[in-house]
Amino acid sequence: MEHFGDLLAGQVQQKKSAVCVGIDPRWKSLPESIRAGVDSGDRSAVAKATECYCREVIDAVASVTPVVKPQAAFFELLGPAGMLALAGVIKHATKAGVLVLLDGKRGDIGSTAEGYADAYLGRESAWGCDALTVNPYLGDDTLEPFVHGAVRHGAGIFVLVKTSNPGSGFLQDQVLSGENQGQTVFERMADLVQSHAAATQGTSGYGAVGAVVGATYPQQLAALRQRMPNAWILIPGFGAQGGTAADVAHGFDSQGRGAIVNSSRGVIFAYQSEQYKHLDWQSAVAKSAHDMAQQLGEATPG
Amino acid sequence: MEHFGDLLAGQVQQKKSAVCVGIDPRWKSLPESIRAGVDSGDRSAVAKATECYCREVIDAVASVTPVVKPQAAFFELLGPAGMLALAGVIKHATKAGVLVLLDGKRGDIGSTAEGYADAYLGRESAWGCDALTVNPYLGDDTLEPFVHGAVRHGAGIFVLVKTSNPGSGFLQDQVLSGENQGQTVFERMADLVQSHAAATQGTSGYGAVGAVVGATYPQQLAALRQRMPNAWILIPGFGAQGGTAADVAHGFDSQGRGAIVNSSRGVIFAYQSEQYKHLDWQSAVAKSAHDMAQQLGEATPG
Repeated sequence: MEHFGDLLAGQVQQKKSAVCVGIDPRWKSLPESIRAGVDSGDRSAVAKATECYCREVIDAVASVTPVVKPQAAFFELLGPAGMLALAGVIKHATKAGVLVLLDGKRGDIGSTAEGYADAYLGRESAWGCDALTVNPYLGDDTLEPFVHGAVRHGAGIFVLVKTSNPGSGFLQDQVLSGENQGQTVFERMADLVQSHAAATQGTSGYGAVGAVVGATYPQQLAALRQRMPNAWILIPGFGAQGGTAADVAHGFDSQGRGAIVNSSRGVIFAYQSEQYKHLDWQSAVAKSAHDMAQQLGEATPG
Repeated sequence: MEHFGDLLAGQVQQKKSAVCVGIDPRWKSLPESIRAGVDSGDRSAVAKATECYCREVIDAVASVTPVVKPQAAFFELLGPAGMLALAGVIKHATKAGVLVLLDGKRGDIGSTAEGYADAYLGRESAWGCDALTVNPYLGDDTLEPFVHGAVRHGAGIFVLVKTSNPGSGFLQDQVLSGENQGQTVFERMADLVQSHAAATQGTSGYGAVGAVVGATYPQQLAALRQRMPNAWILIPGFGAQGGTAADVAHGFDSQGRGAIVNSSRGVIFAYQSEQYKHLDWQSAVAKSAHDMAQQLGEATPG
């Protein structure tokens, strides 16, 4: 059985890249050549074209991308046909030698959480993902089925700790009183993640349980890196959301390990930017992923 | 355009029942007659049989059930074939005159949240649901696309406030300090829900935004009923999880309105219980839903 923490560490090392490409296929932003002739009101046709596009994106970035992160919402938006496309995208990424982290932010209680874990985690599951993002609002007991599922299936989970959006502070930055006095909500969650990460750590020192911490909060990112020494950190918010390479550098350990940095729009829609518009769309996507890997490499230690 | 709060109020009044039947089709618990001859390793065959079962459950309970709550996890567990089954179940419930509240506990930022809202909310959406459960961990700004989507599509959302599981206190019961001193996390979320519920209220006095509060915490349920006068409350945890009719009575207003009470296993697997095992499975399901409606009617005011 593979160990997710070690598998990811191996992929990052082999590809010399901490890039995670977010697969958020908003139909209106897809290349003209993909959309041509497709009736945008026909969900099945849109789903098929979307799958083609995602496969080409994966092929374009695979050599510098250890992990892709399909965003479930954009496939769910297309109904059952979209879910079939999602399954195809996941299979394609796996064949291309890229790990798949599904961004579904799932979370539920007891046997329902177990259902989600069994649905997504591991190559033998219905969806065949290597990892899943998980929402911890329901409580510590609801993480356990995900942690057990991850370990059992050689997969990983990334728990939301401090998210990249402007309003993440509404709950996550609240300071607690009582026996957890002075702690913020996100720190409490980080401690929970760290306990599971430590308990599941592999030879890389990193566990099967990681955390999501936004690039848009670099100070918190630095503190959380220290607070969760055994947890992989998935850092969204790079690029389009405003996070820079210097910001995300705080998420890596002293050897430049332990984090993956997600860019969605900045890579998959690179053909829309001034910088890459002289290239065909596939080359623009490939070049932007390559450039991002280089930027991260220069900004991080090790 | 329909108004969800009023639509639900009308259904509850018409059927004289606050029963919400949770559709959690765990394969191993399905009736022998449904599972006979189906290879449990064949997800497509399992999904088709599961859909048949769910349709029969809906037919059995429709006359006393204003709303059914399919649990997304159990369909996702069956891969793309399961999602096709889910779509069939939703359509069937709608045709049977039962509102569909999908229990997906979705939550994400910005345009991704908008994607989820557009995917599920309203009869014209890809999935055609009347309502969706939503997880608020990411913050107040991430609820807005769901609220707007609900209003735009004549649908509703139910935001997790205080969940029924034993570990819900890990985060939700934490007491805050600073400017929100003395407030718990779930109270802060309840206030957010109430502000959206009040802003979206219809002629019934109830809004398009409701809350999830577990039957297993009757004291908090009573306090939250007062705190969110314009919010529908979805009360899970009745029956199998330990909540009684007396417990859930706290979730209703003085006229016996404003709450729906979910039972999953207690109804859909009623044929497994001593009480109903003398009946064929469909009659057991129907009888248990009928009995639950009666119990709730006797325990609630109005």
